[in-house]
Amino acid sequence: MTEINLSVKIETMLNVKTSPEVYEIIKKEFSGIDTGNETVDIRDSSGRILAEDICSGEDIPSFNRSTVDGYAVISSNTFGASETSPALLKLSGSIKMGERPGTPLNDSCTFYIPTGAELPVNADSVVMIEYTEDFNDGFIQIEKASSPGNNVIYRADDVKKGETVLKAGQKLRTQDIGVLAALGHKDVTVKRKINVGILSTGNEIVEIEKQTSGAQIRDVNAYLIYSGLVDYGANPRIYGIVPDDFELLKKAAEEMVKENDIILISGGSSAGAKDETINAIGALDNSEIFVHGIAVKPGKPTIIARTGNKPVIGLPGHPASCFFIFKTFVLNILDTINGITDTFLTKKTVRAFLTLNIPSNHGREEYIPVKLKPEDGEIKAVPVFSKSGLIRLLSGSDGFIIIDRECEGLPEGTEVTVYIF
Amino acid sequence: MTEINLSVKIETMLNVKTSPEVYEIIKKEFSGIDTGNETVDIRDSSGRILAEDICSGEDIPSFNRSTVDGYAVISSNTFGASETSPALLKLSGSIKMGERPGTPLNDSCTFYIPTGAELPVNADSVVMIEYTEDFNDGFIQIEKASSPGNNVIYRADDVKKGETVLKAGQKLRTQDIGVLAALGHKDVTVKRKINVGILSTGNEIVEIEKQTSGAQIRDVNAYLIYSGLVDYGANPRIYGIVPDDFELLKKAAEEMVKENDIILISGGSSAGAKDETINAIGALDNSEIFVHGIAVKPGKPTIIARTGNKPVIGLPGHPASCFFIFKTFVLNILDTINGITDTFLTKKTVRAFLTLNIPSNHGREEYIPVKLKPEDGEIKAVPVFSKSGLIRLLSGSDGFIIIDRECEGLPEGTEVTVYIF
Repeated sequence: MTEINLSVKIETMLNVKTSPEVYEIIKKEFSGIDTGNETVDIRDSSGRILAEDICSGEDIPSFNRSTVDGYAVISSNTFGASETSPALLKLSGSIKMGERPGTPLNDSCTFYIPTGAELPVNADSVVMIEYTEDFNDGFIQIEKASSPGNNVIYRADDVKKGETVLKAGQKLRTQDIGVLAALGHKDVTVKRKINVGILSTGNEIVEIEKQTSGAQIRDVNAYLIYSGLVDYGANPRIYGIVPDDFELLKKAAEEMVKENDIILISGGSSAGAKDETINAIGALDNSEIFVHGIAVKPGKPTIIARTGNKPVIGLPGHPASCFFIFKTFVLNILDTINGITDTFLTKKTVRAFLTLNIPSNHGREEYIPVKLKPEDGEIKAVPVFSKSGLIRLLSGSDGFIIIDRECEGLPEGTEVTVYIF
Repeated sequence: MTEINLSVKIETMLNVKTSPEVYEIIKKEFSGIDTGNETVDIRDSSGRILAEDICSGEDIPSFNRSTVDGYAVISSNTFGASETSPALLKLSGSIKMGERPGTPLNDSCTFYIPTGAELPVNADSVVMIEYTEDFNDGFIQIEKASSPGNNVIYRADDVKKGETVLKAGQKLRTQDIGVLAALGHKDVTVKRKINVGILSTGNEIVEIEKQTSGAQIRDVNAYLIYSGLVDYGANPRIYGIVPDDFELLKKAAEEMVKENDIILISGGSSAGAKDETINAIGALDNSEIFVHGIAVKPGKPTIIARTGNKPVIGLPGHPASCFFIFKTFVLNILDTINGITDTFLTKKTVRAFLTLNIPSNHGREEYIPVKLKPEDGEIKAVPVFSKSGLIRLLSGSDGFIIIDRECEGLPEGTEVTVYIF
């Protein structure tokens, strides 16, 4: 039996789809799912998705401000001024922070003005204090010519009244929250965090606090997924462990569907005799199964389905496989629902150089964990090969590379994109 | 007056230090500050700094596991097997998930074994179900030779008992939490979140919910810093606004010192007449001022000091300047206290190509916001120039580039590192 025959045999069993096909299905089936909005304090809004356009109700700043400590001048009064041939201007007083200047600036006069204070009427620029001398004789010596607008932020330079400053759908970052504060917003309406129910299945799985006996293993996946979802900005809930039993799985899945926007079930997703996950998912109301098997390694036995408008995902039971499917397809589903498309901004990546040859792929996109190390002024990516992608090895890695399913192998020294964990 | 003379004059006023000098001071003065530990549920531990080494109390897995659905075999029984010349093995039964196999595997026999189940004694590999046929006559046809260890994770392959799997000081990521779960940890001891007090000063500053009148502006900086600290994983608290008054500032700073690990005061940090921040910081108990002025643009009027073992930072009042100083030096202080040194892993960066010439620098390291756009298969960085780095422009940017103070200018097309906001 050749590799090709085998590959056909496996793909037929699971009706395996390629990674681009799966991303296309996710885009088609899960775009536009509306999970609702909520209003939060701007202090709690970092990383949230803005649900409404933000228009400014005012000019920012609302007055002409000085950007330096110095002297407010009429520019033409300073033309030609230099250290050797300074201009002398009469000191009319000092402008105070936060107060409106009481009197306009007269010709050949100046006011002391601190950074951030309002320019008096007629003033069109500010000379930094470093270019002036005050001999306490009621006159200020200006040692540098100042052009109109110099060291001034004009009214509305930052934001004009009526202007849209933030757009619905964008992810709020620190400086966007600064803009909300500048416009006087204490609260902001954002998309509700996506509620995700997490279930683990398998007769061998036990709660993590239990001592394992015999062939049992602890429920690593629920905690992997939970913390990954918190990092993403979703609202996860762990529903515990059910055995590989159709009725119990169906009942648990139905409960999760009521209380969540997305349902994740890890374990029992391959095509083996005891794998009831696919049957339980298929038995949910209005269930449609789009994917059962993806041509990726690790992570092939993955299910992507929908009940009503809620995605239901069956993840592989192996923690490493579960982790990669979570990082790639599950996060893509969350991004799709949230309308996030700028993945090159949202994903943390570095370019690095392979320290080893990567062998050719056999029809499956492959995820290979790498350890990064700075060396000779560049970053090296050391592939971490393992027969089964054990969880410990992932923990010892810094990120992963994606090897295309058509790839004929990558020689040592190839520059690759590393997705940082 | 030449540029050089002026530069000397300014630097003397503020005793300006270069960026590398400041990072050196931060490392020297703030490394090793111990802010204490706390124990948290592993579900809440993502992004936290591990406070203790984690050693494994057991082998993971605790038994030899199959990684596939298939037939457990003694490898030598399959040698030479192929589709055209299969091996026939007597079916001794099925192994159940989570249960110990009751009987050893005899020569020329096989057990059905699902993914994750325990291998029977004597079995040393598993043949995938795809390479077998079951004609229901009590025999299984094996169509591919299997070598020892094939499709098996041996006991302790992932983690050996007594092994250190996670090290004190590392930042916990999703897969590290998976390792904790695998080892049966419900809780984990991590560094306490750094408590940071935030104060704004300036007679012109008003609460963000207030309508501004005259030359007032809203307190943008407190919210900028607050959300940046939440993103970082610190525990910020806003202490409000005080006017430029020595006594009030000192009193507020003293209160913050009692309740926090780091004190941040924005505004009033330049050398102007009304800038009482430096005086108030200088009057704190055992106060030492290390930096007053950094040769960066924007953000020059920055203060770095210490009272007892607590960093006290004076940030510029301009929101854009405040933002850059926060992103660069303040986060570096937090990293230093947390013992984080792998900045190329913790910072999100992309390589991109400049679309415009960047002019030469004049003795100050410069932070230039950029907008990123994918074009012709690469990423372009469009510099966003602005006379004063207004907050709105930052919000319209994707990241920033750092121009060295010695830089003679960068031509269009230069590949640069962009720090994503």
